[in-house]
Amino acid sequence: MFDHQKYEKQYFLPPTVSYDWVKKETIEKAPTWCSVDLRDGNQALPIPMNLEEKLEMFQFLVDIGFKEIEVAFPAASDTEFNLLRTLIEHNMIPDDVTIMVITQAREHIIRRTFEAVQGASKAIVHLYNSTSEAQRRQVFRKTKDEIKQIAVDGAILVKKLAEETEGNFYFQYSPESFPGTEVDYALDICNSVLDIWKPTPEHQAIINIPTTVENAMPHIFASQIEYIHKNLSYRDGVRLSIHPHNDRGCGVSDAEFGVLAGAERVEGTLFGIGERTGNVDLVTLAMNMYSQGYDPKLNFNNLEAIRKKYEGLTRTAVYERQPYSGDLVFTAFSGSHQDAISKCMKYRKENQIEKWDVPYIPVDPMDLGRNYQTDVIRINSQSGKGGIGYILETNYGIKLPYKMNEEMGYATKKVSDQTNRELVSEEIYQVFKEQYIDYCPHFQLIDYRFEKGEKREVTLTLQQTNQSMELQGEGTGSLDAVSNALKIAFHLDYELEVYEQHSLGKDSLAEACAQIGISHKGQMYWGAGIDEDIMRASVQALVVAVNRLLAAN
Amino acid sequence: MFDHQKYEKQYFLPPTVSYDWVKKETIEKAPTWCSVDLRDGNQALPIPMNLEEKLEMFQFLVDIGFKEIEVAFPAASDTEFNLLRTLIEHNMIPDDVTIMVITQAREHIIRRTFEAVQGASKAIVHLYNSTSEAQRRQVFRKTKDEIKQIAVDGAILVKKLAEETEGNFYFQYSPESFPGTEVDYALDICNSVLDIWKPTPEHQAIINIPTTVENAMPHIFASQIEYIHKNLSYRDGVRLSIHPHNDRGCGVSDAEFGVLAGAERVEGTLFGIGERTGNVDLVTLAMNMYSQGYDPKLNFNNLEAIRKKYEGLTRTAVYERQPYSGDLVFTAFSGSHQDAISKCMKYRKENQIEKWDVPYIPVDPMDLGRNYQTDVIRINSQSGKGGIGYILETNYGIKLPYKMNEEMGYATKKVSDQTNRELVSEEIYQVFKEQYIDYCPHFQLIDYRFEKGEKREVTLTLQQTNQSMELQGEGTGSLDAVSNALKIAFHLDYELEVYEQHSLGKDSLAEACAQIGISHKGQMYWGAGIDEDIMRASVQALVVAVNRLLAAN
Repeated sequence: MFDHQKYEKQYFLPPTVSYDWVKKETIEKAPTWCSVDLRDGNQALPIPMNLEEKLEMFQFLVDIGFKEIEVAFPAASDTEFNLLRTLIEHNMIPDDVTIMVITQAREHIIRRTFEAVQGASKAIVHLYNSTSEAQRRQVFRKTKDEIKQIAVDGAILVKKLAEETEGNFYFQYSPESFPGTEVDYALDICNSVLDIWKPTPEHQAIINIPTTVENAMPHIFASQIEYIHKNLSYRDGVRLSIHPHNDRGCGVSDAEFGVLAGAERVEGTLFGIGERTGNVDLVTLAMNMYSQGYDPKLNFNNLEAIRKKYEGLTRTAVYERQPYSGDLVFTAFSGSHQDAISKCMKYRKENQIEKWDVPYIPVDPMDLGRNYQTDVIRINSQSGKGGIGYILETNYGIKLPYKMNEEMGYATKKVSDQTNRELVSEEIYQVFKEQYIDYCPHFQLIDYRFEKGEKREVTLTLQQTNQSMELQGEGTGSLDAVSNALKIAFHLDYELEVYEQHSLGKDSLAEACAQIGISHKGQMYWGAGIDEDIMRASVQALVVAVNRLLAAN
Repeated sequence: MFDHQKYEKQYFLPPTVSYDWVKKETIEKAPTWCSVDLRDGNQALPIPMNLEEKLEMFQFLVDIGFKEIEVAFPAASDTEFNLLRTLIEHNMIPDDVTIMVITQAREHIIRRTFEAVQGASKAIVHLYNSTSEAQRRQVFRKTKDEIKQIAVDGAILVKKLAEETEGNFYFQYSPESFPGTEVDYALDICNSVLDIWKPTPEHQAIINIPTTVENAMPHIFASQIEYIHKNLSYRDGVRLSIHPHNDRGCGVSDAEFGVLAGAERVEGTLFGIGERTGNVDLVTLAMNMYSQGYDPKLNFNNLEAIRKKYEGLTRTAVYERQPYSGDLVFTAFSGSHQDAISKCMKYRKENQIEKWDVPYIPVDPMDLGRNYQTDVIRINSQSGKGGIGYILETNYGIKLPYKMNEEMGYATKKVSDQTNRELVSEEIYQVFKEQYIDYCPHFQLIDYRFEKGEKREVTLTLQQTNQSMELQGEGTGSLDAVSNALKIAFHLDYELEVYEQHSLGKDSLAEACAQIGISHKGQMYWGAGIDEDIMRASVQALVVAVNRLLAAN
């Protein structure tokens, strides 16, 4: 039964709503990023990471630049417990990195958690209990006061064990299932916990507000965070943190607005791996800052390699359309997009533009370890001349005159429309080769020989249906002489309108490509030649162009 | 090089910023949904749909409830052109559905477009040209006025051809690359186009604002839309539309805020398939409304089947974490989540709750053609007793006493922690069977026979290491007699503390399951039995419990 009447809103507005956050444009200063890949992320994997994989993931997160990492729910399984002991006993935690462990507000779980973190030089113990109206009523069957007492009792025990246990401990509290919790009640619990911990600017605590399950639009979440931000006790002793999930597809906006509204710390995972629709994707958050010119304080300079490693460790695939990291996110299939990209890439080079402003490509793929050859322009039946020209230039160094590029575009589109699939760059080159380099249905060039003299004279050797023939011609230049020889032999009348040539590489010994366009009765006929010798390339190009003219008439 | 200084913001704030939208809580009335699956979606497929597939997709979109469908860029390829001719000539477009075709503002493309839609009983011709600062400078090398003139000339030609061509035509204009366009300039172009079209409430035009490439936070987009909404000419003759993409992961928020800010129509695709990071996902937008109790005016009552069909037609896979539709989005692996879900599902049944408010499950999976057995709770080493109990009850009808469930939870976690992978429900049942039904290392029950009398008397036949033995016992009831026989034979002293039984199905002839817990020195020992005969099930359960006690001592 598909019936919307089975549902009603389950979120709560704060007692007073303010909109300071909406007047801020964007995030200019990176919040503290806390990776929960080893906890919330790992928890959502059909096959969780084993101890070795977790250790590797930990090092990997440190390398990316995370300074806070939630490593485990140590009371949940032996693997998680052992991870803590290994990290601590083998001194694997850098001085500038703080680990975090999560525990429910239940005595035996808290005790087991402190056994796990004993001896840690710096660890956050993250206490939580569920506070929502639905869970109070259905799961715990407890009053508001009783639920608050669970949090307070937990906070007392955590404080006591922290004093008794070897190591340096910081505290974090989360009112779990916050989205279904009355905002002032959640704030009251947080403040009651803080009354136990009495945090100071020198020894701060963290209050972490999760969108455990998203149930409202992100501007509602922003108003909730702004209210908590303004009404939290010990405010300068507290770091306000958020932990967005993505059930309504708005995890990124929750996070960004939460920061605008006063949050100083964001918990999430790489690529958004996490329970259900996932945690908020920290790559997206960081790159959103980066793409506007702000330092995200995380380094994704080889995001491509990071993604591959992550996929290996988690046995999970990053979505092909995941912002910044997915396979397809820099790719344009559409003709007009390709055209614009192609022109702008050329404009950038010519005008030595430093700031990135290429249309349809939010950030330079090269910054993230991707490349222009395979990631940016891909060709299917929706693609056009701009894309084809880009592929030939970027992958093969071939630059076509505008009108020739247009014709080549139509020739390629015909192939992709008929085959009804994507064409790889080799296939596009193949179309180019068949149509403009090898196209000689009427006659082929066997050889040519120039005679010295005031006017250039040439002797051409051609082959036509198994017969060899020799032609003579003369003209003001070499190519003119060849052209005249062909005109006479085939009784042709055309203008040599376009003659372009360029080398295919930076090396002066590299091959050259010549393109020639001849016109006859307002119609253009194109040919191309590639050879180490530029004259041979040009003669070949003309031979193809003349063949096309003969074929069309 | 990973250097944020290569970037700077490229969006433009409107001349005046207002915040009416932020004071609205949510979307209560569905906007007009326009599917662009056949155009923007198809364009992004490595293998675009062929004609037959497109016709099938069209019918499929109609069945879901779309009233506006952008079907093609008819001038872009023969396949797209032929789709239009087929739809029109075979009368395949229902009366209440309006098709749309897109065309660049270029004369030959507009003319070809009208050839494609000739004879349409109702069609929107969607005109666009690119307007951003970056493209004006780099791609077109034209002034603002020249770019505006392209739009105006296009609008004039579209109007002229609409008058000359058989059929009923409506108009839409998009300032393409809007996110990089000065907002007042984009508005000026839109109003200039409207001055040509002079729309009325009886014959409305559409102004469509795309986030072609997302480059700002969604509250910025909302302020831009609110400005356009308030300053558009012919406002009651215009439907304001938006077309979000997802490059910053905020397509859903752009769409939702755009509607709050005054947009009446949203273009997007199913599951968010589209260029790069995709178009906005219309399933998510519709289900976000649905989950708050508002009618989305689209029917996803079998979203599971819709997804499979879509994946087949597009040869693309919907992401496993895509909100509402992905494989994993209703799944809880975490123990505490499973526990809450399990308790609430029971609470719902007992209290006949109609409104959906199960924690961690945003909407009832059954509404979308999913099921509770395989989609909701899956077991890995992060899972706990709640999930295990849920699996046994939902898939096998077995309800365990609380403490027995807890012990079964630890037994299962041990297996998943050691095997380090997800356990399917058969494996969980296997653990249950080995531990509580078949566990008889000390002796097995061969048979039992009760004698009639005032006190119940029993004769038990057991087998112990290849030897058969007979025992007698008597007690106040049948089970008590069996228990006494076992106590005497094995010199045991225990209390029979828990004895529960229930049928495994609704059928009165169905098998029954009995669970027995005996205590000795404060420790519980559990056993279970399943049989058509409830007494046999109970005796078997006791036999296992006694075996466990013997094994432990």
